Amino acid sequence: MTTMELLAQARGAKGAMALADSEQKNRALLAMADALERRQGDILAANAQDLEAARGTISEVMLDRLALSPQRIAGMAQGIREVAALPDPVGKVLARVERPNGLVIEKTAVPMGVIAIIYESRPNVTSDAAALALKAGSACVLRGGKEAHRSAAAITAALKEGLAEAGLPREALQLVEDTTRASSRELMTAAGYVDLLIPRGGAGLIRACVEQATVPVIETGTGICHIYVDGAADLDMALDIVENAKCSRPSVCNAAEVCLVDRACAPAFLPRLKERLADGRAAKGEPPVELRLDLAAAALIPGTPAGEADFDTEFLDYILAVKVVDGVEEAVAHIARHSTHHSDCIITGDEGTARRFLAGVDSAAVYWNASTRFTDGGEFGLGCEMGISTQKLHARGPMGLQELCTYQYRIRGTGQIR
Amino acid sequence: MTTMELLAQARGAKGAMALADSEQKNRALLAMADALERRQGDILAANAQDLEAARGTISEVMLDRLALSPQRIAGMAQGIREVAALPDPVGKVLARVERPNGLVIEKTAVPMGVIAIIYESRPNVTSDAAALALKAGSACVLRGGKEAHRSAAAITAALKEGLAEAGLPREALQLVEDTTRASSRELMTAAGYVDLLIPRGGAGLIRACVEQATVPVIETGTGICHIYVDGAADLDMALDIVENAKCSRPSVCNAAEVCLVDRACAPAFLPRLKERLADGRAAKGEPPVELRLDLAAAALIPGTPAGEADFDTEFLDYILAVKVVDGVEEAVAHIARHSTHHSDCIITGDEGTARRFLAGVDSAAVYWNASTRFTDGGEFGLGCEMGISTQKLHARGPMGLQELCTYQYRIRGTGQIR
Repeated sequence: MTTMELLAQARGAKGAMALADSEQKNRALLAMADALERRQGDILAANAQDLEAARGTISEVMLDRLALSPQRIAGMAQGIREVAALPDPVGKVLARVERPNGLVIEKTAVPMGVIAIIYESRPNVTSDAAALALKAGSACVLRGGKEAHRSAAAITAALKEGLAEAGLPREALQLVEDTTRASSRELMTAAGYVDLLIPRGGAGLIRACVEQATVPVIETGTGICHIYVDGAADLDMALDIVENAKCSRPSVCNAAEVCLVDRACAPAFLPRLKERLADGRAAKGEPPVELRLDLAAAALIPGTPAGEADFDTEFLDYILAVKVVDGVEEAVAHIARHSTHHSDCIITGDEGTARRFLAGVDSAAVYWNASTRFTDGGEFGLGCEMGISTQKLHARGPMGLQELCTYQYRIRGTGQIR
Repeated sequence: MTTMELLAQARGAKGAMALADSEQKNRALLAMADALERRQGDILAANAQDLEAARGTISEVMLDRLALSPQRIAGMAQGIREVAALPDPVGKVLARVERPNGLVIEKTAVPMGVIAIIYESRPNVTSDAAALALKAGSACVLRGGKEAHRSAAAITAALKEGLAEAGLPREALQLVEDTTRASSRELMTAAGYVDLLIPRGGAGLIRACVEQATVPVIETGTGICHIYVDGAADLDMALDIVENAKCSRPSVCNAAEVCLVDRACAPAFLPRLKERLADGRAAKGEPPVELRLDLAAAALIPGTPAGEADFDTEFLDYILAVKVVDGVEEAVAHIARHSTHHSDCIITGDEGTARRFLAGVDSAAVYWNASTRFTDGGEFGLGCEMGISTQKLHARGPMGLQELCTYQYRIRGTGQIR
């Protein structure tokens, strides 16, 4: 099927999805989870073909991301069941007003319509994204990576069985068959077919969407996250938070990439930072962090001299750029120039300084005395997430079910005219 | 000044606007209103030049829209004072959660940054749009129509005086000097400078924004609004609502353009519709409405035969397309194909039918037994509006101060790591 044909099918199914009630959608989700487990053999066979074809062309880390196992499939099914257990966002009355003329106006959450997601190789995204979009009352069009296509096709076939068992149209879930760039481009420009496009991938994909898309897009994020250690910081807390934000999972977008240190505490803090992140970790057999130092930091501790690009790089690795700044104002100014507006943090014991930072930093999440690693739908209590938005329109930060909906005004009258 | 230079100035001022508190912003708005009245002579002189240059090149209706008077300037000043009296949207905590780990997460309304507005000739939009954007804590870049440029420049000069009197940067308000299409294009593609672009104008401008913009855009709307008269309608109420929606102000986007009539009541309703809208109005000396009838309607009453295009045209005139449909399902299906998703209405006494319509019609505003003319920020109780969004992302329907803001998550911890 061509991409436009399957988009037309998805569009045709959005009415049925919008009218499905919570009970029917949840029944479909539970049937989808069961079907995944029932079709485990087909899925693992398809995945083995994907792995065989990919071996030698992608890294071992990528191969591991691609690989499925009975445990991983059970985890995917469990993920779908958790989405079924979440409250239905559709139909929620977000605001209600009764006007003096008697009109009752209800601002009501309604589905987007057709949500398309472009993603890369992890097969579990296929079921996660489908479950969220369908629970939000939308039809879902998935365009996954080439390496995982056979796996995604087997997963999608199982999920469609579950939809049909609950009496919902199979056409509400579509996997794009064409895995060349042409299909991404088609999704980006399918005005009238795609109500929301969510690109989940690298900076190149996001940029292409921003430049080429004529359909509504929510950018998900690259994260150049900063931690500013203020002169009034508890330095023990600062060390714990910087290590956690940098090292607990360096490959994710909410990991810290830059540490800004107030000149007032730099002589005390920087030697301890080096001990904690580099020498101390090496001594414990953990991957040490390479510190890339600006001139002022380099005058206090040994390390690699930072190039200017180091303050604009999402390392996704055990590397931390370090810069000495003159207090919160310079920290805020540096972040304004270099942040990707994902998550930025201040460590301080001074409430006034913290408020200045929180109000001055224009990012999706701003932290006072906590790790940037908490920027996550689950950690924020949303129960799930479709990604982390780094744009300002519609959704910012973790996107849960509510952010996958739009709203409409429903107005009841008794013959009012104006 | 080039457009890029003034965008850079606006961007430089957004920090000061974001940090301004309610008292300071309101003081600035009141000073802006006073300055408009104080500079009335300059503004009227500039407006006289605009009118002189435009005479003969634009219609009398457009000339009237362009013309200012002491009364109109007083009205503009009053509009600014009303914005000052509205609650400040910035800093409002939209949601608050305390997590089991002790993190306190506040989803907080924050300014967009730089809001740019492209509009046409009415000079009062200059002050309305500036007041709303500044109250929402953003810097504001205005790009008005060529015909009104001298007026807009005089108005902007006065408003900047007001800003400065309250200690806010004059640079937070900018009027684009270049009124050729090149400057619109520059605004659409000024990524990193424009946080939100709102085009207010005809379908051509909106289409150009959708196709070319790389900055975030909220489309404002053309309205092909429908009224469906159900078989269970109170026909007297239906006549009142259709006449009001069509005739009270035919040139606006929330006016009705299409009347769908249930086959069950068409023989009773259509002759009365013709009497009310055409003959009755003519007899009272009011502009009669031209009815453009599909075949089934034409079999019941005299009128102009409708061409297919008549069901996809925003007439903005005393013209109404009329079609007979088989009940609510065909009405919903027709609206799905032809609506611009602005405002659509059902007239019925049957609650089940009404619910089917409200849930099935995917428009910004859906009405049951009230005129579509109520789709308006003031009528919805928002106190004001920047326009009517017909898109689904971020804002739908009338955009008030809240919709001109974004949000960020502010997270307070005590050293939490993950």
